[in-house]
This record gives sequence, structure tokens and C-alpha cells, in this order.
Amino acid sequence: MTTRTLHVQVPATSANLGSGFDAVGIALNYFNEIYFTEDDKEFISVEIEGLGKGEIPETFADNMVGQAMERAAAYNGESLPKGGAVKLVNRIPPGRGMGSSSSAIIGGILIGDALTGSKMSKEDMLSLATEIEGHPDNVAPALLGGLTISIMDGGKTMTNVVPVGDDLSFITVSPDVEVFTEDARAVLPKEIAYKDAVFNVSRVSFLVSSLVTKQYDRLQYGLQDKLHVPYRIGLIPGGESVLKAAEDAGALGATISGSGSTLIAFAVQNEQAIMEAMMNEFKIRGIDSEGHILKCWNEGAQILP
Amino acid sequence: MTTRTLHVQVPATSANLGSGFDAVGIALNYFNEIYFTEDDKEFISVEIEGLGKGEIPETFADNMVGQAMERAAAYNGESLPKGGAVKLVNRIPPGRGMGSSSSAIIGGILIGDALTGSKMSKEDMLSLATEIEGHPDNVAPALLGGLTISIMDGGKTMTNVVPVGDDLSFITVSPDVEVFTEDARAVLPKEIAYKDAVFNVSRVSFLVSSLVTKQYDRLQYGLQDKLHVPYRIGLIPGGESVLKAAEDAGALGATISGSGSTLIAFAVQNEQAIMEAMMNEFKIRGIDSEGHILKCWNEGAQILP
Repeated sequence: MTTRTLHVQVPATSANLGSGFDAVGIALNYFNEIYFTEDDKEFISVEIEGLGKGEIPETFADNMVGQAMERAAAYNGESLPKGGAVKLVNRIPPGRGMGSSSSAIIGGILIGDALTGSKMSKEDMLSLATEIEGHPDNVAPALLGGLTISIMDGGKTMTNVVPVGDDLSFITVSPDVEVFTEDARAVLPKEIAYKDAVFNVSRVSFLVSSLVTKQYDRLQYGLQDKLHVPYRIGLIPGGESVLKAAEDAGALGATISGSGSTLIAFAVQNEQAIMEAMMNEFKIRGIDSEGHILKCWNEGAQILP
Repeated sequence: MTTRTLHVQVPATSANLGSGFDAVGIALNYFNEIYFTEDDKEFISVEIEGLGKGEIPETFADNMVGQAMERAAAYNGESLPKGGAVKLVNRIPPGRGMGSSSSAIIGGILIGDALTGSKMSKEDMLSLATEIEGHPDNVAPALLGGLTISIMDGGKTMTNVVPVGDDLSFITVSPDVEVFTEDARAVLPKEIAYKDAVFNVSRVSFLVSSLVTKQYDRLQYGLQDKLHVPYRIGLIPGGESVLKAAEDAGALGATISGSGSTLIAFAVQNEQAIMEAMMNEFKIRGIDSEGHILKCWNEGAQILP
């Protein structure tokens, strides 16, 4: 047999970006990697290196990468090889709103498709990933890169991609606290004031157009949100203070990444000071955190040579 | 004395563009013109040529152009000349949601400022015009041209401008029916379903990004709205049928212009057939209408040489 080895790199992502609830996302230059090596065993093993080891299932059938590989193979009407080894190199903090589960889904689909004929288009992958994840806002930027704006129409997901320049930095600070997506959904209301909906419509269109026109000083307005941040920030201990610390230290704006607990700040300077100020607000509350100064990743997920 | 003559051209506009309620607008290449000639009389006369003659006040103090001229002069801390003649050449149908009142306000401000020292920046003009009109969504494109995305923060209006290419056509059909802005506001609810707000957030960001990336076939999704069109379309006799007729005739999408009664379709081909299909739907209901095939006007209002 020919031994196939595949190496996939999937970027971290940040969904929502304040006003863009459930629609807007961005890919960041911080990556999980997945290796697959075919072998002559009768099963596919899973090994985890890095974050989540001991928590993330290491059996193929239970692991999200394995499940996504199977779904892609089924989509192509083919079977995965019987034997092989999957190795996950996890750097994206799991359960922190930085797209770690989307990275597993997208990585699994890319590998599963490559092993079964490479029949899937990017659109096919996007729709399958959205079906698995439930929302396109993290899977779209993980797959496509850049700033992504996604809609769902019936069962179909459509995404527009807009590149974002390296002159803008994204500072992520992930506290050692998990916000469960179910809890984050549960705090949202069923109805909202009409004026709050109108507010977000103006802010999200201002956000996208400020990024497109590189008017970064306007991001502070585009990031403003009345749909989720006011309801969810209380789920993150010290959250409000961390956002304020980021802005006081010179950030253009700051908000929750996905449903948290990561907080993300936008800046064109003072990145290190902003990160430290944010981490310090967690620290004085006795909470450790992991900080990164990142750029937008415009390439999307890739099978590396 | 030196006799000053000024000639101003202000574009028609279409606000909202479906999902962009109260935020998004576009300038169109169809214009009202205003002439001002200083003379040695003791008052400023107003003459109207074209649409609205007999309805629009022809005394300077009551006319919207005159009022805006006065406001601009007051902003500059100066006085207008005592004597002069204002002539309005009106082509934008009044009271039809195509920005005729915004054109009067913007034209008046441009002339008033030019007569009193040309001290106002575009930002000053935008904020003053928004103060007079109440909303930035028509005054911003009338002043600045292009696709505009506006927010209000405190008393300040900020607008992002994105140019739109000539490859996209805008077909406006204005029926001989007026929708009063107060009535159009009165039909809107005070609260809406959370999911409808989320829907519009995704649609408006998709609208802006589809226009920026010239993916015009995606406009049909970006134009979808759950904030105002479903509530207001019933105020326009035959409105639903006209929108459907536009799409059946090949439009990329169609919606209400401003608060109506004009309906606007988006197309890259079949413009004439789309316009006729829309006008015909009004005609079979016994309603005359005025149709135009237009392009985006990226220049904004101008003082012509």
C-alpha cells in the first residue's frame, strides 16, 4: 500500500466581533495542526499533544476530528482507510471562544475529504461544517480565512470573505474560566427592544465598512453591541473591567470572543501594554490567563505540503 | 457689490436598502439643482421649476432650502446676503422616499455655507443636516455620494462611504401615492423577536460585504429584511406584487426605497423589462408611476463651476 501522510493547519477564530452576532467572524494567525498517517492497522488511533490532553476523547469515534473525517467521507460516498494515526497538536485553548471545536471540525473535514477523493468544494465543506457545529460564525473563518460574513438560508450557508491587513492587531486574553455555550445562549432574551435591533444593524454595517475602508479609529463604534455582550459579559469574572482596561491601555475597542471566556481587543499600537493590562485585571481576581497578540489570517485552513 | 451666483447639484438617494434600516443609504445619478443669485433687493425670493410647484412653499422663510441656508449661516456665525433669488429645479419626486427633502437640506447647507465663508467641513454639514432631518440615512448619501453607512453617537453623525460601480443598476419606480413618514414610523413595533434582530444583523453585513466584493448575485440575500419591509409594504398599494414582478423580470432583489412609496430594484441586466414590469403592476391597479434606471452616484452633492 501507499502510505499517505497529511498535515493540516487550521487557524483560531473569533466570532461575533461585538455587533456581528452569529454572522461575523475572523481568522487569526494562531493554529491547531492535525497530522494523519495511514498505516496497516485495523483502526485509527488518536494522539493529542498540547492543550486538552486528558480532556478531549482519544478514541477516533468519540473525537471531533474523527467524527468530521467520517462525515466528509460519507459526503463523498467513500470509506476512510481502515488503519491510521491521527495526531492533534492543539494550541487553541479549548472551550474559550477561540474556535477550537471549529478547528477540529474543519481539520477533520479537510483530511476526510482528501482521503476520499477530494470531491468537496469549499461551499460543500462550509455547509457540512455548519451542519455539524450548528452555526457558521466560527467554521467559516476557520475554513476560508479573513473577515467572514455568513448567512444561513434554509440549509445553505453562504459566506463573504473580506481580507484584513496586518496593520490591525487582535489581542486575545483567555482566562482560566470556561463559559459553556449553553449557558451563554440561555442568558439571551427572546425579544428585544426595536431600537436595540436598529442599533446593531447600524453598528455591524459600520464595523464591516470601517474594516474595509481601514478606518480603524471607527472600530470602537462598530464593535458596540446590544444583542449579546450586555447579557453575557457578567458570565466572565471581571469581564467588564478587562474590556475597560484594554480601552484605557489604548485599544480601539474590545469585546467578547465568541461566547467567551476569551476577550479580544483591537489595536494598531501598544499591543503589549494592552495585553498586560487585560491579563492583570484577571490576575488581581486570582484568575490566570493566556494572552496573544495576533493578526488576521487571510489564508484559511490549509493542507500543508 | 459683487454679484454672486451659485449652482448646486444634489443627488437623489435611497435609504435603508432592505436590511440596512436607518443606517444604509445610496446616492443615485438623478439630481435636483438649486441656483442662488445675489441681488440688491431687500429679500430672498424662491422660484420652483419642476416637481412640487404649487405644493412646496415659495417664501424663503418657509422653504426648506431657505431654512437650511439660514442654519448654515448661523452655524458659521454670519448672515446671508439680504437680497437674492433662489431657483429650485426639482426632478426628484417629493414625498416618495427618494430623498427630495434631504436634497433641499443639503443643497441649502452647501449654498448657505458658501455664502458665509465656506467654514463648514463635510462632518459639520453632515451633523447639521442630520439635526434638521432627524436621521442621517438620506442626508449622508446626498452629501457624500456612494453607498453610505451611518451611525449616530450622541449628537454626532459618522458615515463610512463605499463606492459602488456602474455595473450595478438601480431601478426606481415611484407610484402616484404618498406614504407619510409618520404613518411609516407608526406601523413599526416597539419590540421584536430576538431572532429577527439576529437575522437583520447577518443580512446587513452580508449586504455591505456583497456590494464591496461585487458579488451582486448575493444581493437578494443581503436585501432581506425583518425590521421594516414586512410592516410597511402594505402601505403601498400593490407593493408586494411590484417587488415580485421585479424579481420575476430578472432583478437581483427589490425593496422599499426609504419609507416609500418608491420601490427600488437592483439589477445587472434586463433593466428596461424590470422597470416596465414594476410600472405595469401599479398600472393594473390604476396607479400611474414614474420609473428610472439609475446608477450609484459616487461624487455626492456639488457646487458646480
